[in-house]
Amino acid sequence: MTDHLLLPDIRIMLAETDDAGLAAVMSELHPATIADCCEGLSIEEIWQLFEHTSIEKQAHVFPFLPRAKQVQMVRGTGQEHMSRLIEKMPHDERVRLLKSLSHDVVDSLLPLVAKADRQDIRMLLSYPENSAGSVMTTDYSWLPPDIRVSDAFANLRQQAHHSETIYYTYVLDPERHLVGFVSLYDLILAPPTAQVSEIMQRELISVRVDQNKEEVARKMQKFDFLAMPVVDAENRLVGIVTHDDMIDVVVQEATDDALKMGGVGSMAENYMKVPLVTMWRNRAGWLSCLFVAELFTFTALAQFEHDMEEIVALSLFIPLCLSTGGNSGAQAATLITRAMALGYVRISDWWRVLRHELILGLMLGVTLGILGFFRASLTPQSVLGNANRWMLALVIAQAVTLICIWGTLVGSMLPLIFRRLGFDPAYASSPFVATFVDVTGIVIYFSIASVFLL
Amino acid sequence: MTDHLLLPDIRIMLAETDDAGLAAVMSELHPATIADCCEGLSIEEIWQLFEHTSIEKQAHVFPFLPRAKQVQMVRGTGQEHMSRLIEKMPHDERVRLLKSLSHDVVDSLLPLVAKADRQDIRMLLSYPENSAGSVMTTDYSWLPPDIRVSDAFANLRQQAHHSETIYYTYVLDPERHLVGFVSLYDLILAPPTAQVSEIMQRELISVRVDQNKEEVARKMQKFDFLAMPVVDAENRLVGIVTHDDMIDVVVQEATDDALKMGGVGSMAENYMKVPLVTMWRNRAGWLSCLFVAELFTFTALAQFEHDMEEIVALSLFIPLCLSTGGNSGAQAATLITRAMALGYVRISDWWRVLRHELILGLMLGVTLGILGFFRASLTPQSVLGNANRWMLALVIAQAVTLICIWGTLVGSMLPLIFRRLGFDPAYASSPFVATFVDVTGIVIYFSIASVFLL
Repeated sequence: MTDHLLLPDIRIMLAETDDAGLAAVMSELHPATIADCCEGLSIEEIWQLFEHTSIEKQAHVFPFLPRAKQVQMVRGTGQEHMSRLIEKMPHDERVRLLKSLSHDVVDSLLPLVAKADRQDIRMLLSYPENSAGSVMTTDYSWLPPDIRVSDAFANLRQQAHHSETIYYTYVLDPERHLVGFVSLYDLILAPPTAQVSEIMQRELISVRVDQNKEEVARKMQKFDFLAMPVVDAENRLVGIVTHDDMIDVVVQEATDDALKMGGVGSMAENYMKVPLVTMWRNRAGWLSCLFVAELFTFTALAQFEHDMEEIVALSLFIPLCLSTGGNSGAQAATLITRAMALGYVRISDWWRVLRHELILGLMLGVTLGILGFFRASLTPQSVLGNANRWMLALVIAQAVTLICIWGTLVGSMLPLIFRRLGFDPAYASSPFVATFVDVTGIVIYFSIASVFLL
Repeated sequence: MTDHLLLPDIRIMLAETDDAGLAAVMSELHPATIADCCEGLSIEEIWQLFEHTSIEKQAHVFPFLPRAKQVQMVRGTGQEHMSRLIEKMPHDERVRLLKSLSHDVVDSLLPLVAKADRQDIRMLLSYPENSAGSVMTTDYSWLPPDIRVSDAFANLRQQAHHSETIYYTYVLDPERHLVGFVSLYDLILAPPTAQVSEIMQRELISVRVDQNKEEVARKMQKFDFLAMPVVDAENRLVGIVTHDDMIDVVVQEATDDALKMGGVGSMAENYMKVPLVTMWRNRAGWLSCLFVAELFTFTALAQFEHDMEEIVALSLFIPLCLSTGGNSGAQAATLITRAMALGYVRISDWWRVLRHELILGLMLGVTLGILGFFRASLTPQSVLGNANRWMLALVIAQAVTLICIWGTLVGSMLPLIFRRLGFDPAYASSPFVATFVDVTGIVIYFSIASVFLL
């Protein structure tokens, strides 16, 4: 049963108000499948479909809808119904929804929500962007340490309906300090008469609520966790980050980094759905900045105008020399940015990276320099002017080598410098590094030429 | 308790052969934490530490060690012990280990492994790289449809020790066809007398064993699954892909794409640990190819040598014009490559992408063209030669606009063409696109100049 076969069926059921059929759709399909079908329906039709199931199931399907649709749906229904739905939604999902709504909609909705939920929402909304707190949920399941395993099952069964997961349960003391962790797997294999404190895992692996969400993702990946407990400064459990939210963090970060490194800036949405004007604004901003910076190549070249008039061959090699700097810089910047994203390289490693890249830059530069030497030695007489063929080849070889080293150094150090200054290292993109190296590359090139040729 | 405090403790325990202490370390710590400590120990010390726990726990810790350490450890122990460890290891992890071992080591080890495990290993080894089969594991838990919920618990308890997860259980008919799915959550909330077939989810969401692993990751992310069932052409369950393997796939793909897009090729390891020569070989290969391609800029420019001699200003604007093509191309290539990786853009969308990028290229080109016009109109008299200032400005504006459109088109179409030809679209990297656009950009630039100026 695939979505494009389902949708026409649902349309017919809606037209014929086939209550039994619609109820079956809502009860038997996975929430994500239902959400897929909803993308082809109008807001009114979705609400009509939703009426055929419990508010709990509605609250499960709702988060799978695209955010834009969710926002439209809030407007398309009564506030009373929406406030009930918000109470039943996973705690992290409802906060994400509220963040997408305009302030006046939130202000009119929140007073209708039950007090406990309202406080929970305000708490989750208060955490800074990119922190563990901003991606966690508060509907975790927990147990006291002195409960028996057999009673723990009954307890978890009660928590199941309003918990994001019962597979991982946290053991809390009366002050809600995190003292242990027990998985449903451990509970199922434990003797029913044992106490939870006897079987729980005591090694406390958790993250602080103010830790960066990328670090949380890395730590979860390291331990293969389904959920990571989030604690405050006093080690009290305040929430959990679940595996599905973590994968979203990882994918989002990868996209963000890729786009920044390609000089696009950040663009969260589906490429096919971004309006032309938004796309233009995003891309034109970056391109214009790079263009203005690149204007300095004109200024730099103008200084060496007479040298170029004397030996035309010099100007013919400019794109080759500059692209060498751009390419080697792009390589180094990409490697270091990605290594930082994976946690392999930290700011404190700058000296090791510098040494490493200096040696590599030299090795790469010499490789390319040799290639350049051979090509330049084949320069036709007509463009040589009164320059010596072998001297020109030597100039090109040296310029290529030096510019390659320079590009490698700039590319490897810029991401570290950006991080140090508090910027995202991914902004040290290939186009940015290339532009930066172009202007300096011209100066390097003509300085060498003036020593050996002019 | 952090690792750098633990390691000295473990060292002392090993030196004093403190059996109780070492046994406590092995029983109380998370396998990943133990593996962290092992990184600071010699191969002999690790085996000494491992002796203080069961073979099952050893098999749990082993996969968390870095692959290189695992390979060393295989050499450092008796084959008899290693074959027992392999029998207890998660099925996907042991296949990954065997893939890293040399053929003769595998050939001497495998005959010692129990027959059923050996067959399982050979089966998993047979799936092509990047397929769902290559990342799945065969130690899933399953139930027949006609079993009662109360009996299902007893059944799962028996399967628990050799299953990767019991949170998701698949319901199979006698021919092992996938007929349903039941989570431990569903089982816990179900009445004990109900039959599994009454409570199971019948919407079958699965992947085919030959499907690409990236598609599997996207599908798991869409449904927020802990594990995805993998079936053969006859819908028989052959394995599952678990959430921890999926996150590894996502991170690995993001790294691969980022490095390819930066013109580094693929490099799976930790940046800090790659030997200089390997790093040089990887990077020099790409840089040399780009360098050789970029040599054509010399050839192209040589054709227009006389034009440059006539109006020196023309050569001063070359880097600006070329970088415009490179930057706009890098943007477009990055956007499309990432959109393809996220599944937003497919080959069949090429026409929509082309139209979209043509309009955007025009909008961006005009934006930059206007900037270029103003800068070129300020060209000093000394480099203008006998060219008209406004004509030169017009040439620069048109060249920048056209090259920007060209770069955008090349950047957006190359990833699609690469995918069509069966290459990874990420190879349409920023440096690759820039080099491609440089040579053609020169021709565009001087063709316009020759119409208006020469």
